[in-house]
Amino acid sequence: MVPHGSGTDRTSDFHAHHSPVGALAGFTLGRHHHDSGPGNEIGRAATGGVYVGYRDGVGKDAILNLLPFFPVSPCDLERYVGSAAANTGHVPRRLFAESEIRRDYGWATDRWSAGDLSFEVLTPVESLPDPRTATIAAQRDAFVPAVTLRLTVRNPGDAAREAFFGLGSHQGWLALPGLNGLASRTGYGIATNSSEAKPYIAFDPEWEFNRTHDHALFGLGSLAGYRMVIPAGSERTLTIAVGWWKEGTVTFGKRMAYWYTRIFSGLADVLSHALARAPEVVAACATRDSELAAAKLDDEQRFLIGHSTRGYYASTQLLDDGGRPRWVVNEGEYLMLNTFDLTVDMAFFEARFHPWALKDVLEQFASEYRYVSQVFDPSDPTMLLPGGVAFCHDMGVQNTWSPDGRSSYEVEGLDRACFSFMSCEQLTNWVLCAGLYWSRTRDAAFLARHAGLLVECQRSLLNRDHPVADKRRGYMQCEDERCRGGGEITTYDSLDHSLGQSRANGYLAGKMWASHVLLVELLTAAGRPEAIEASRAAALRAAHAITASADPVTGIMPSLLNDPKTAPIIPAIEALAYPAFMGLAADVSDQGPYGTMVVALRRHLTAILRPGICFYPDGGWKLSASADNSWASKIHLCQWVARHVLNVRQGGEAVRSDRAHADWQRQGAAQHAVSDQFRSGVAFGSLFYPRIVTTILWLDEGKPASAPA
Amino acid sequence: MVPHGSGTDRTSDFHAHHSPVGALAGFTLGRHHHDSGPGNEIGRAATGGVYVGYRDGVGKDAILNLLPFFPVSPCDLERYVGSAAANTGHVPRRLFAESEIRRDYGWATDRWSAGDLSFEVLTPVESLPDPRTATIAAQRDAFVPAVTLRLTVRNPGDAAREAFFGLGSHQGWLALPGLNGLASRTGYGIATNSSEAKPYIAFDPEWEFNRTHDHALFGLGSLAGYRMVIPAGSERTLTIAVGWWKEGTVTFGKRMAYWYTRIFSGLADVLSHALARAPEVVAACATRDSELAAAKLDDEQRFLIGHSTRGYYASTQLLDDGGRPRWVVNEGEYLMLNTFDLTVDMAFFEARFHPWALKDVLEQFASEYRYVSQVFDPSDPTMLLPGGVAFCHDMGVQNTWSPDGRSSYEVEGLDRACFSFMSCEQLTNWVLCAGLYWSRTRDAAFLARHAGLLVECQRSLLNRDHPVADKRRGYMQCEDERCRGGGEITTYDSLDHSLGQSRANGYLAGKMWASHVLLVELLTAAGRPEAIEASRAAALRAAHAITASADPVTGIMPSLLNDPKTAPIIPAIEALAYPAFMGLAADVSDQGPYGTMVVALRRHLTAILRPGICFYPDGGWKLSASADNSWASKIHLCQWVARHVLNVRQGGEAVRSDRAHADWQRQGAAQHAVSDQFRSGVAFGSLFYPRIVTTILWLDEGKPASAPA
Repeated sequence: MVPHGSGTDRTSDFHAHHSPVGALAGFTLGRHHHDSGPGNEIGRAATGGVYVGYRDGVGKDAILNLLPFFPVSPCDLERYVGSAAANTGHVPRRLFAESEIRRDYGWATDRWSAGDLSFEVLTPVESLPDPRTATIAAQRDAFVPAVTLRLTVRNPGDAAREAFFGLGSHQGWLALPGLNGLASRTGYGIATNSSEAKPYIAFDPEWEFNRTHDHALFGLGSLAGYRMVIPAGSERTLTIAVGWWKEGTVTFGKRMAYWYTRIFSGLADVLSHALARAPEVVAACATRDSELAAAKLDDEQRFLIGHSTRGYYASTQLLDDGGRPRWVVNEGEYLMLNTFDLTVDMAFFEARFHPWALKDVLEQFASEYRYVSQVFDPSDPTMLLPGGVAFCHDMGVQNTWSPDGRSSYEVEGLDRACFSFMSCEQLTNWVLCAGLYWSRTRDAAFLARHAGLLVECQRSLLNRDHPVADKRRGYMQCEDERCRGGGEITTYDSLDHSLGQSRANGYLAGKMWASHVLLVELLTAAGRPEAIEASRAAALRAAHAITASADPVTGIMPSLLNDPKTAPIIPAIEALAYPAFMGLAADVSDQGPYGTMVVALRRHLTAILRPGICFYPDGGWKLSASADNSWASKIHLCQWVARHVLNVRQGGEAVRSDRAHADWQRQGAAQHAVSDQFRSGVAFGSLFYPRIVTTILWLDEGKPASAPA
Repeated sequence: MVPHGSGTDRTSDFHAHHSPVGALAGFTLGRHHHDSGPGNEIGRAATGGVYVGYRDGVGKDAILNLLPFFPVSPCDLERYVGSAAANTGHVPRRLFAESEIRRDYGWATDRWSAGDLSFEVLTPVESLPDPRTATIAAQRDAFVPAVTLRLTVRNPGDAAREAFFGLGSHQGWLALPGLNGLASRTGYGIATNSSEAKPYIAFDPEWEFNRTHDHALFGLGSLAGYRMVIPAGSERTLTIAVGWWKEGTVTFGKRMAYWYTRIFSGLADVLSHALARAPEVVAACATRDSELAAAKLDDEQRFLIGHSTRGYYASTQLLDDGGRPRWVVNEGEYLMLNTFDLTVDMAFFEARFHPWALKDVLEQFASEYRYVSQVFDPSDPTMLLPGGVAFCHDMGVQNTWSPDGRSSYEVEGLDRACFSFMSCEQLTNWVLCAGLYWSRTRDAAFLARHAGLLVECQRSLLNRDHPVADKRRGYMQCEDERCRGGGEITTYDSLDHSLGQSRANGYLAGKMWASHVLLVELLTAAGRPEAIEASRAAALRAAHAITASADPVTGIMPSLLNDPKTAPIIPAIEALAYPAFMGLAADVSDQGPYGTMVVALRRHLTAILRPGICFYPDGGWKLSASADNSWASKIHLCQWVARHVLNVRQGGEAVRSDRAHADWQRQGAAQHAVSDQFRSGVAFGSLFYPRIVTTILWLDEGKPASAPA
């Protein structure tokens, strides 16, 4: 548990996107005085508040002490105890101040302590069973759309106190029959197994505490929760499950429901199951917290792993496509479905905890979101040449499935600008993900099924360098015909041409190199030895092009391999991650077939990882020397490559860098939970994002490369 | 058609809540520079905009002329042609100014004209068939969840023009296969039967006009619509259907779907049907517009009838309760289900156009939302006395059905404050609605089924005066036990005690009088002659109490019959409406059994309908002399009673009053479509409200009282 707030030099004042798995739902909380609480399919914090606290007594003047988990405008703050205009409300309220709050942030537990309370939000991190084959019991544990909360209040005094919990901002609350539960028509509910907890529905805490009548469940109320008397000299823990339920068809374009509606009968079933399993959840979370605490990492790294894990889960969606489970990871605030250039970054996490999900995404791309296209050499855009298979950027947006063969994002006819095609990069992503998946599962059936496709991918990769063999240079030269004379882009779509354009891009050349390296492995395993040689040659060609781009004096490589004037980028090293993760030690060693490139990349990285080039004053990494625009997910991936593959360890700067990246999230993205895109440490896009889980790679640093899991 | 805007002294700048019937959906439009467009279950204007206009040419510099149906912040306005900073956008835009816009507002057609375009929003006003018995074909016509639009653009020039239409503010648009349609995942779509109209999905008009590629259906676009070339020297009309589709269970507490999902197969079916029927709709709307134009009314009254009719439809919801149709009218912005004190005001409209719906609401109250309670005399709140049947204030809120026997609104233990019980008033409402329903249908089965309940209602009415016969005074004296020692309120809940408290309230005494008058009729028809006498006596007792309350000198009655110091109110006369509507001419005549009261009420009204008492400086009616708080629905009902029953016609002031009330809506509620609650002509509550359709009573003024329909 990484300490924050009181007594530490880390702020507690930032959102975390606590979530179950596969429900595209979040219980977002942590930023002081802002919208907090349960959200549904929105990719951000829901409008509303969470009330957590206790009342110092039960009389009319007893102060209600609350954690600051609800929106308070600066002028409203004056109403609170301790301020100039205090006590103008009926019920005196006191908000715990930042200085009184301690927040212990683990991998699976987020614990808040203030005054005489502690409050935990528990989100287990587990290996998820494959819904195609797992027992219903195992699935109910793994995919229950609920988050567990525990509010503990001590009462050292000699008069009764009252614990208080509430949430919501929307009318339409009802009692849930059969348990001590309350359900909102907006698709979520809460329940507790404590019979001492008295449910209420009210306009606000004042309405509830001031009511003179016995009708606690006010039909127009928008705030719902529990009160529980804590007798003098005692302590009580209130365990609450927050659960989501959205039934029927929830998608558009293709009709699917949530998978959880197949394994639960309704919200009451969800909440009952979550409550019954609460002790197990508490223990499981503690185990994960300990595992992270024991890892050879600094606290900032531990924080980043926990924070990014939550953001990943919040974007996950397990759907029921007529009885077939479908795995979707939404693109954070943008809510695009299975954006492929995110999949490849999250593949390290998925390969570890649920490789079946990674496979499912590959299958969806292979069967529905691939296309075959021709290419053109930019020297003559009118002449179409043989190309090959490619994959879409995504599968749709906002629960809306795009037509097969089309992403929601890509548009024809743009020239290296946002919304252009990413054909070549997504092609590498299918191969790279397939390699990562296979390396962890040795799933022979998968390989057999897709051996033909892998050969097609190889052919397409070669043609996207150039269809004419002796014009190949080891990097992408030819554009997809869908660009209609324009040009493709990379996942760094909003960056300048240093990373944004695909053509001759060193980052993409690395991914093409890695794709060919992996294809050698995959085609060998698939029994296609005759196809290996072409990839081996292509990998050497790419490695040579990359190596040759380095300035002989400085060792620095340009971002565009054919233009020495272009700014250097850190992600030149990124693609080493794939063979390294697969345990292909020789391919990433100084002595291996690509040793010259590896050595050159180390030299490149060492040369640019310094102030004024690719290093921010706070110690944060700057992905491109030419742009103030850095993606956390990619930084963390490249950090792993630097340390684990290249043995570049930053010396005394390492801790400062980790602190900077953690502060970017806690301060620069305080309202946006874990975010990806930063300018000088301030998040400005890709908020509430899933792909920062590249941090999972750090967990096994120090262990042998061949057995990271 | 009542003219607004250019060339008139009426503004065109106000929202109308155009809607289909039974879909709780609105196509809200009219307020300049504000949120406009299709909404779903929200009780207000949806976030978004509607783009209606034409481009002066097809080249890059051609100006796009638009009606002002989308949000424009004052600073954005500078971007438009004619302003200082014009042309900073890529596509020059011009917003038609108020002075260029003409709006002709009929009962069923809302027609906008500006430059070379006209744009119509068509919402037929029809007698609705009973879904229990009507053919599917008839139901599909009546309940199609769609609104028809017609955009006509003339091109008198010698170069091509382009008509432009678009709407939306939300991602998740897809092409609708099988027709020229576009569907949004948020539950609506558009279609046209013009093959010349080219569909697009884009970020905004600039994106669409500036795109260099041929991919018109951009997956991330939030604006969707059509473009159509208008050749030089010609004119084209683009007919567009806007349709809604929300399938599956849409309610909470009790599980129901939309009835339209039973008679249509999907959004494509809805839109195809609406387009096929468009010529019929245009004709039907013209017929209704003419009917209203021919009525003996002034233009302001015609406007108010058209405006209130739209607001009513927007709140309607026809649900499918396991095969049984359920009629719900939502309470405008508050979205309470079938609020009973609104039902009684809308009953005049429903009795005319769809009496089966009024009956259905009565059946729902009778079977699910009634209760039996004791009462107490406020002199001894601890002593519970015999009471009887009463009805809930509403059936729930926000698609959430309250438990049987409970409203969402009412709360125990309040003393004549907002959210207290309305037991006695809702009791009168069941009797009054039953009378209105029966008078138009002579539905003997209904009467037979509820004869026992009517006797129970009579008993309860008597006991709520007082259970001890010789303590009865002709008005409510005893409070419902649910008030727990407090006191009931009336539909004027947010008013001071002049209208807000039920006890001894003259307005409520009138409704109790009318209930007994109607009970005499209903029980006679039901073959219960033995029960008649009690109601006859009670009616006389009420009439006597009301009459006796008048000040002998001024003729003014106090609002509380037992307190001469309380302020006078216009609604003292309101209850005359019920027997009058039923054609019980004798009961409301000066010569009838209650003639003394009728004469006294006329004297009361004449005395207070003057400046400083119940008359605003602008000519508007002020319901209570003691509060600046007036309900449009009740004003219009009382206006009808004044003219039609009491023959009080205001002389030259009448037109000024109508103009004031119309301006309250157009200016005081410009952003809120038709609204009910006003302070000095400015809406401050009950926005987007359904019950202003009491205006329907005006349509037949001048016809014999016995046959108003």
